[in-house]
Amino acid sequence: MGASPGYRPSAWVHLLHQLPRADFQLRPVPSGFAPREQEYQQALLLVAALAGLGLGLSLIFIAVYLIRFCCCRSPEPPGAKSPPSGGGCATWSCIAALLVGCAGIGIGFYGNSETSDGVSQLSSALLHANHTLSTIDHLVWETVERLGEAVRTEMTTLEEVLAQRMELVAAARGARRQAEAVAQQLQGLAFWHGVPVSPLQVAEDVSFVEEYRWLAYVLLLLLVLLVCLFTLLGLAKQSKWLVVVMTAMSLLVLVLSWGSMGLEAATAVGLSDFCSNPDTYILNVTQEETGLGSDILSYYFLCNQEVSNPFQQRLTLSQRALANIHSQLQGLEREAIPQFPAAQKPLLSLEETLNMTEGNFHQLVALLHCRSLHKDYGTALRGLCEDALEGLLFLMLFSLLAAGALATTLCSLPRAWVLFPPSDDYEDTDDDDPFNPQESKRFVQWQSSI
Amino acid sequence: MGASPGYRPSAWVHLLHQLPRADFQLRPVPSGFAPREQEYQQALLLVAALAGLGLGLSLIFIAVYLIRFCCCRSPEPPGAKSPPSGGGCATWSCIAALLVGCAGIGIGFYGNSETSDGVSQLSSALLHANHTLSTIDHLVWETVERLGEAVRTEMTTLEEVLAQRMELVAAARGARRQAEAVAQQLQGLAFWHGVPVSPLQVAEDVSFVEEYRWLAYVLLLLLVLLVCLFTLLGLAKQSKWLVVVMTAMSLLVLVLSWGSMGLEAATAVGLSDFCSNPDTYILNVTQEETGLGSDILSYYFLCNQEVSNPFQQRLTLSQRALANIHSQLQGLEREAIPQFPAAQKPLLSLEETLNMTEGNFHQLVALLHCRSLHKDYGTALRGLCEDALEGLLFLMLFSLLAAGALATTLCSLPRAWVLFPPSDDYEDTDDDDPFNPQESKRFVQWQSSI
Repeated sequence: MGASPGYRPSAWVHLLHQLPRADFQLRPVPSGFAPREQEYQQALLLVAALAGLGLGLSLIFIAVYLIRFCCCRSPEPPGAKSPPSGGGCATWSCIAALLVGCAGIGIGFYGNSETSDGVSQLSSALLHANHTLSTIDHLVWETVERLGEAVRTEMTTLEEVLAQRMELVAAARGARRQAEAVAQQLQGLAFWHGVPVSPLQVAEDVSFVEEYRWLAYVLLLLLVLLVCLFTLLGLAKQSKWLVVVMTAMSLLVLVLSWGSMGLEAATAVGLSDFCSNPDTYILNVTQEETGLGSDILSYYFLCNQEVSNPFQQRLTLSQRALANIHSQLQGLEREAIPQFPAAQKPLLSLEETLNMTEGNFHQLVALLHCRSLHKDYGTALRGLCEDALEGLLFLMLFSLLAAGALATTLCSLPRAWVLFPPSDDYEDTDDDDPFNPQESKRFVQWQSSI
Repeated sequence: MGASPGYRPSAWVHLLHQLPRADFQLRPVPSGFAPREQEYQQALLLVAALAGLGLGLSLIFIAVYLIRFCCCRSPEPPGAKSPPSGGGCATWSCIAALLVGCAGIGIGFYGNSETSDGVSQLSSALLHANHTLSTIDHLVWETVERLGEAVRTEMTTLEEVLAQRMELVAAARGARRQAEAVAQQLQGLAFWHGVPVSPLQVAEDVSFVEEYRWLAYVLLLLLVLLVCLFTLLGLAKQSKWLVVVMTAMSLLVLVLSWGSMGLEAATAVGLSDFCSNPDTYILNVTQEETGLGSDILSYYFLCNQEVSNPFQQRLTLSQRALANIHSQLQGLEREAIPQFPAAQKPLLSLEETLNMTEGNFHQLVALLHCRSLHKDYGTALRGLCEDALEGLLFLMLFSLLAAGALATTLCSLPRAWVLFPPSDDYEDTDDDDPFNPQESKRFVQWQSSI
């Protein structure tokens, strides 16, 4: 009945899950999620190391390109006949790369907020599950307490009042036994009582880590944005020092981009392994951590018609005992009150307690049903495996675009820089039309046409 | 117990809700959500009309600016001494405006996806509520059917078998009456049976509208993006015809931006009125549409400890009747089977039916509890009043930025256009460095220095 909010692995999960994995000796590693196994950890580190390889390759490419550029340029005498060729092309490619970088930043902001959304879904589902579990605990405790109090006071009073008629005392004793049985059965329903793991704690830990992850990405995105904007400004103003500073910054941000790329790739691959078959892993881990029976955990994590409610018998027995108490109290009311008016007060009080217990019992039945907790589980999985994973993929796209754009910029900037006017003669450049190279020429023409 | 997933109006809702409203005669209108009242409709139309006013003002401003520009320019003779001043400034402001427009487009994409998220939360909550309601209906129907079948067949067989001992037949008749009473009580629990409103239908309608709204915004955003990029291209290539076409397109998109702004403002204001106090409105509308009792609706929409479960009595009575049937069947088993072995088969079959009924009953108790449906209600409200409203505000920011950017572009483009070279002499312009107006001048210097 609870299959509706179920989670199904997305196409991205399947795709990432099917990528081959290998450990440090390049032996294939099965792609089941096993974060505690050394081989699996090595496989994830190897995925992260691919980004390091990318960084190394792009640095080598940039170095070779720039060395070639410098070597081909230096033998040229200062008074050479041809002007430095391809300078415009260099600036244009630089601008295009920076625009791509800016688009990447937009994608990065989107991916960051998407990941954050997914993780906050996860932690709010954990909080809701915690609320359900603690409410079950509280309700059981309250009901048992109330029943015990009623048995200790009203039931004893009643027995004392009815002491003269043994069959009535026997009926009251029967009701007392049933009430004690109900309390006994109910105590067994507080299955989370004394479990050392708290979903609240997990949710707080997840939110704490996510807060810093989010902040770190926002800072990285702002850094890339600032580098792009100041590089554009440097090109527009033809400011040599700004371009030099931005070249150094670009190098730094290139390293950061590839680094974040490695983290994202490893996380995405690990997450896809987890998300392709989360039930088994979660069941095992929860069983280890909580020590709860596998029947209870399967009931909540699977929640389909094949898994029967492990509390069904306790619930049915409590329900029957409650109904028996009710009929016994009604019998006593009929028989005893005409003869012993003093029995009316404890009997009415007992019936009120019984009604409250029945109300609490229905709430307990509702809370113990797998529907609510299974829905939280589904929400948490969807947050993690759909939104957060999708956000991670967008962040990977951002890192890739940023790395590409910055590498292109690093190659182009020195070439554009060479074309800048040699000194501060052109301070008024920024007042001119940036897309109108003929402006100054035309101004000369105008003046000469006077 | 269900207060945890509750919804609280955000600061934006309070802010928008406190804005003054007026009808067409400018009389103040109370800001309670009343979409069927003419005055309230007029107030929302007036909010939308403010965007029309904005469009009118910006068109007048552009027209005055351009007329002033043309009139001040035309008396100037072709061989005037000064070059057209501020041309570079015009192009720069045009580029700055287009960059602001692009940032606005990014914000618009984010807002559109946020709104879409919110609405999909709403419709998935409706789908889940529909699933709960239809499961209740189905469970009740199945249980009643099964009980009726058992009463018709096994109970009759049992009575026929036990016909010789009247006290056993009386016990069997008692069980039959109790079973009929349970079926009667259960039928009253299918409270959504025969209600003409289906959350499924509402969810489908909402998704349908949202799909087209989303698509329309994506098209508008792409249109604005294309206009921005092609205008930039026109400026870079100094292509007169492209700039003319883009001026016309900018005018069209300016109108569209203000139009979307009006729609968004009216929707946001209406939504804030709804979201500031949704319970009352939703309760009234649902009561009108479904004809359900206010006790049931308050129970599900408020779901706090003050509102008691309207099904409590029915549930308690059914539970007691089920327990009574159980004890009667057990009594029959003890008494009858030794004497009438033929009674064993119907008795076992009846007990099996009873166990199934008890299982279904516990599921029904869980489904009927307000927790699940109230959580759906909270999710739907949060989707609509937090995510969708936030998305709408981002879309408003996009419209505002786009309108401002396009108005600035419309003012600047003709001024930049005037500065373009008069004919096709400068076809090679696009090969040059766009940020290097001295390039050509330097080229001349280089050549002359040989």
